[in-house]
Order: sequence, then C-alpha cells, then structure tokens
Amino acid sequence: MLVEMYRDMLGKKSVIRELSEFATARGREIGYENVFDYSLGNPSVPVPQAFTDEMIRLLQETDSNVLHGYSPSLTIPSVRTAVAESLKKRFGIPYEMDHIFMTSGAAGAIAHAVRMIAKAGDEILTFAPFFPEYHPYVDHAGPVLKVVPAQTDTFQINFAAFEEMLSEKTAAVLINSPNNPSGVVYSEETLTRLAQILTARSREYSHPIYLITDEPYREIVFDGKAAPCPSKYYDNTIMCYSFSKSLSIPGERIGYVAVNPACEDAKTLIQMCGQISRGIGHNCPTSIVTQVMGEIPDATSDLSVYETNMNLLYDALTELGFTVNRPDGTFYIFPKALEDDAVAFCRKAMKYDLILVPADGFHAPGYFRIAFCTDTEKVKRSLPVFKKFVEAEYR
Amino acid sequence: MLVEMYRDMLGKKSVIRELSEFATARGREIGYENVFDYSLGNPSVPVPQAFTDEMIRLLQETDSNVLHGYSPSLTIPSVRTAVAESLKKRFGIPYEMDHIFMTSGAAGAIAHAVRMIAKAGDEILTFAPFFPEYHPYVDHAGPVLKVVPAQTDTFQINFAAFEEMLSEKTAAVLINSPNNPSGVVYSEETLTRLAQILTARSREYSHPIYLITDEPYREIVFDGKAAPCPSKYYDNTIMCYSFSKSLSIPGERIGYVAVNPACEDAKTLIQMCGQISRGIGHNCPTSIVTQVMGEIPDATSDLSVYETNMNLLYDALTELGFTVNRPDGTFYIFPKALEDDAVAFCRKAMKYDLILVPADGFHAPGYFRIAFCTDTEKVKRSLPVFKKFVEAEYR
Repeated sequence: MLVEMYRDMLGKKSVIRELSEFATARGREIGYENVFDYSLGNPSVPVPQAFTDEMIRLLQETDSNVLHGYSPSLTIPSVRTAVAESLKKRFGIPYEMDHIFMTSGAAGAIAHAVRMIAKAGDEILTFAPFFPEYHPYVDHAGPVLKVVPAQTDTFQINFAAFEEMLSEKTAAVLINSPNNPSGVVYSEETLTRLAQILTARSREYSHPIYLITDEPYREIVFDGKAAPCPSKYYDNTIMCYSFSKSLSIPGERIGYVAVNPACEDAKTLIQMCGQISRGIGHNCPTSIVTQVMGEIPDATSDLSVYETNMNLLYDALTELGFTVNRPDGTFYIFPKALEDDAVAFCRKAMKYDLILVPADGFHAPGYFRIAFCTDTEKVKRSLPVFKKFVEAEYR
Repeated sequence: MLVEMYRDMLGKKSVIRELSEFATARGREIGYENVFDYSLGNPSVPVPQAFTDEMIRLLQETDSNVLHGYSPSLTIPSVRTAVAESLKKRFGIPYEMDHIFMTSGAAGAIAHAVRMIAKAGDEILTFAPFFPEYHPYVDHAGPVLKVVPAQTDTFQINFAAFEEMLSEKTAAVLINSPNNPSGVVYSEETLTRLAQILTARSREYSHPIYLITDEPYREIVFDGKAAPCPSKYYDNTIMCYSFSKSLSIPGERIGYVAVNPACEDAKTLIQMCGQISRGIGHNCPTSIVTQVMGEIPDATSDLSVYETNMNLLYDALTELGFTVNRPDGTFYIFPKALEDDAVAFCRKAMKYDLILVPADGFHAPGYFRIAFCTDTEKVKRSLPVFKKFVEAEYR
C-alpha cells in the first residue's frame, strides 16, 4: 500500500514553489522581464569556462569505459585527494583522502552525515532561520529535527534557548553559515562559544555531540572577507559542502562530506558513507562531474555580481525604512516585513509583481527573504517598484 | 554516536569485491592480460559515440545556467516525455510523462520503488538467485527482503515455494529479468503465472501486491529475441531501469522508475518519488546526463560482443562437462560447480588465475558466476585455462 508519510506530503506544497509558479505564470502574461522573481535561490552567474572546458576535454581524451565506469564505493580516490589537499591548504586542517566522501551536493552530504551518527529517538538541533529542507533530510532518516528560535537582532545563535534545548538525546547540531535565508556569517565568537558548549555537553552526556555544517555559500562572502571555518573550532565536525552555488551547477549534484581528521572515528565515519549510500540508492555521484571537480577543485564562477546586487538592495531597503541586517554573504537578504504578518505583506507585494518569500517556513515569522541571484539590471529596475509598493501600501 | 547498523556492515566485505581485489593484485604481479577476471559486472563495450557527441553538443550550445541548473522536483519534463514515448512505442503501453521519474540508475529506482509502497513490518519477496545489493536497498528502507529458493533446473520461478511464502505482509515482489546472475529471461509463461498469483493474492489480502521489476539487462538478449516486458502482464508494476549496461555508463547513475499507467494510483506514486528524493538526499539525477538521455533515449552500445562471448563460454563449459543453462541474455553465465562447495571450487580456480564468483551470496550455493563483459580475445585465451583447471583438479 502507498506509504502515508510520503503521500501526505503531496498536499503540502512549498510556499517558495507556489510563489515561483505564480511568477512563471505571470511572466507568460506580462513578459518575464517585468516580473521581479526573488523567490528561488537558483545561481544566475555563468558556469566558469574551466568547468565546461574540462568536461569536454575528459569526453574527448578519456577512454569511455574509464570515464563513465563505476566509481569505487567510497568514490574516486584521486578526486577525494584533490579535495582534501584543497581544504588542507585553505584551512590548515590536515585532511587526507580518507576524510572525504563525494556526494550528490550538500543534500546528499547532509543525508549521509545524519545517518552516520543519529537514529530514531535521537534529536538534531538547528537554528532559526533555517533551510526548510532540513526537515526531510533529518526526519526521513529517523531522528527528529528541533529548531532553536532565532536571535532576531543579529541572526547569530540564540545561546540561551540553545542551552535549554540541548539534552541527552542531542546527537548533533546542524548549522548553516553563511546562512540561508539571513545572509549572516557566524562569527569567530559565535563558533568559539558553540564549540565550548558542545564540548561541555558531550562530556556531561558521555557521548559526542557532532557538529554538522552545511556550507554551500562558503565562497559567497562580501567585503573581501572569508567565512570562519567551523571545523577549525570544534573537532567533531562533519562538513557538508556543495559546488552548486560557487560554480552555478546545482543540477549537477556534486559536493562532499569532509570529516575533521581530529573527529572521533573520523575514517570510520567516511567508510560508513559507502554503506549508507547502498541503502539510499545514491551510490556515488556522477562519474564525469566528480572527475571534473578533481581537476578544478578551487574554481568558482565570477561571484562579484551578488555583492553588487546586495549593496543595491540593502541601500534601497534601508532608505525605504526596512529593518534589515546587511548580509555578510550568500545571495539572500532578510528584512523585517512592514506588518506583523509577512505572508500578507508578500501577498500585497505580488500585486506589484515583486515575488518575495515570507519567512514563516524558515521559522522566522515577520521576516521575508529576497533571493537576489538575478541580473543587476533587473535588480535596479525593481528598486522603484519596491518604492511604489511601500508608499502605496504602508504610507 | 556512530550508528551501529552501518558500522557493523564495514566488517562484511563483499566476496565479489575481495575477488576483484585479488585479481587486481595478481594483475600487478603477472600482468593484467594474464589474469582472467570474470568477477565484476562492469560493462566493457565502448560508450556509443552518440552519447559523447550529444554531451559535447549540449556543453557547447546550451546556456550554462540552463544546462547545469536545478531540475524540477519530479525531474526534467522533456526527458520524462521522451522516455514515456520510447516505452510506449516499444511495448505498446500508454506511458505518459506523469508515469516516469528519472533516477540515479536502477539502484535509485529500486530505492524509490521500495519506499513508495513498503515500510517497516512489510515484506518484499525476491527469487534466488538474486543480486545481493537488494538487501541494503530493501532492508535500509524499513521492510524485510525474503528470498524464495531457486528453481535450479531452469532458473525460472519456484512457484511452489513462492506461493508458500506469500502472506498478508507481502507488499511487493521484486524480480530481475534478464537475470543477474543466471542469465535467464523470464518466459511469457512465467510472467503470466506470476501475474495470476499476484492478482489472486492481492484480492485475498485486500491490498495490492506490487511487482517491482529490475530491468537493467533488458537490451542484452540473445538469438535476436526480446525479453518479455513484465509490465504487460501485470498492472501494478513498477519498472526500474538503468542505462548503465545498455550504454556502458554505470558511473553516470542514470535510469528511471516507470509506473504502469494501469497501476493503482500510478501518478500519485510518481509524485511521491519527489518527496522520497528529498529525504534520501538524492534529489534529481545529474542534469546534463539526464538531458543527454532525453535526446537519445533509444541509443545503445554495440552489445553483440556479449553474445559472442556467451557462445564461446557456453560451448566450452558444456564440452568440459559442466551443467549449465544457456543464458538468454545479460553478460553472465551460471554453471554448477564441479564440487558441492562452490567456494572451494572457485578458490581452486584462482590457482589458474581464473577469477570466478561462488554463488552463495546470490542464494544459489553450488553454482558460480562468470561475468563475461571482457574482450572476446581474452575469453578465447581463457578457454584452454578452464580446460587445464578442470582436468588437473577434477579428472
């Protein structure tokens, strides 16, 4: 019989997807260029030429049975080595091949990380605002995702609430920095304090509380800064990375799990990935895409447009009177709505063909998300529309 | 803490993998050309040029954000349509886009199929000899895989044992035709009788018993025949397909689930795939590979070498006195060992650098598998070695 858990999910359409569908329908009506669709976090800067060139080179020069053949169950050794070396050089952490497992993007990485260290009855804590897909990633694996309320003044961590929610049952804490949707990067201070608490509680409960870090926006940080690497602050860290955002290749499903070499049972955890993959039918990520990443592990698209867009929107929104933290990175900005009900706010915005996402799904009611991965020219054209909307509805 | 289920699996190394590792080590010692490695089912005929050409064309001609962008949650509509049309034309079953979900190979397809219709407490029956990876695909999803003993004279279905094992708890039956490891294709008679039994028992138990069909070897059938399509015999069929074997691209992880349009809740089942994908972190298969398959859904490699190899081996083994069914398809042949203990038999063969796989893992003790996806020239060179081995050890 049909498994109810999945069938019941069909009714619950994602708000983001509904908005995006509205935007598409409206675009057909009035022209796509006239709909300011800020709903989807779909990278918009071109894929780097190096990615395309490398894939064509592999197709032209490699024996087809080797290029497209089965990967070993722990994924391709040369690529794992290339990723380890890149991380080692960049963060000064002594990663080796045995600490890396290539995955189908960060989704695959988190799905593996959760299954390594948590099962039914366990809890995984995350912090609002958070990416709603964490729910299926965690809940379908067996444990339960619990959400620590947001610290809305800074969108760093609400430590008071966090310390209350930690318990014997906590198997792991899942963070996302740079953060979708708030654009915040967790500071050194935040990561240090987080590590101190996790270390103390691991001792108290006599079992490690792992830190799972979702880091797909790591390369999109503004003002010439870099995001502090959570693994440097806490040994029992399982890093989950995706090349989706940095290379604009979200459809190619490529990323990795990197277990901190200082983590308890680090190499065993990676070996377990191979077993987890068998059960979820994931096996290895696509052979050719994996091999490309082994050749160009440090490549990125030209990501500067996101900073340009952010500055334009931040300045305009501030001038219009919005309460908004200036994002440290990502391609999201996260203002407070101009009325308590952000859903009503976003619905009114739709009348002006501004597609904004209310943050109720991110567990931050009263806020909304703008995904500014779009042309700068279009961002500029949207600014007077924001002004018109605010003045007509809220003045 | 480390999840025991996965950690405990680490000790249990696959026999096939151990044999393959021995073959590799031995190859380094005496030269790979002198080791007759019949252990792994890794396709050996070249990938069709059309696949390579189409991928290069997409890379050169498509906007990179479109080519590498997110796929919709139910996978790319144009590709689902192309697959539906190809199946409709070939099998006369009225598949439409809404009956197709693209997956990461047959492994991904089976992992989805199992999760659609079975949960903890349910049973899925399969027939020996069978591909041992069915265990993680099924057991990790919650239900239990139960194995119906082999009908060793023909390797069709042992219906007496099957009827005894069916029960209220049976959610689905999982078949593999053409079969790994026996090479048998289920006959029209077998599929008709299977359908009759499933229909009767579904009625008796007041719930549908689904038929999940694993069909990656469908294009590798000998003597100009075609494998009967199980979906034509039973409405509640969930077809699981992979392009791995027909195009020699097992590393690219591309296949599909096709739910019979006449299946109960057919379109709902496909929609559920999108939800299942979220939880297992699989999401869609790789965008570029999916798009290639949409362009060339009917392409195959030149698969004729497998038939040539089969005939050489079948004739030689028969002449040497082996009891062996002539395979109908696949790139496997499945003789009875020359002593009761097939592990001992295969161990003796290793002394002659013949790497054969004892079928204990396939639930057919006393038999062994030869995966003849290798050069015909090497198959020919192996024949006198088989002779030498048999004459020295068993005459």
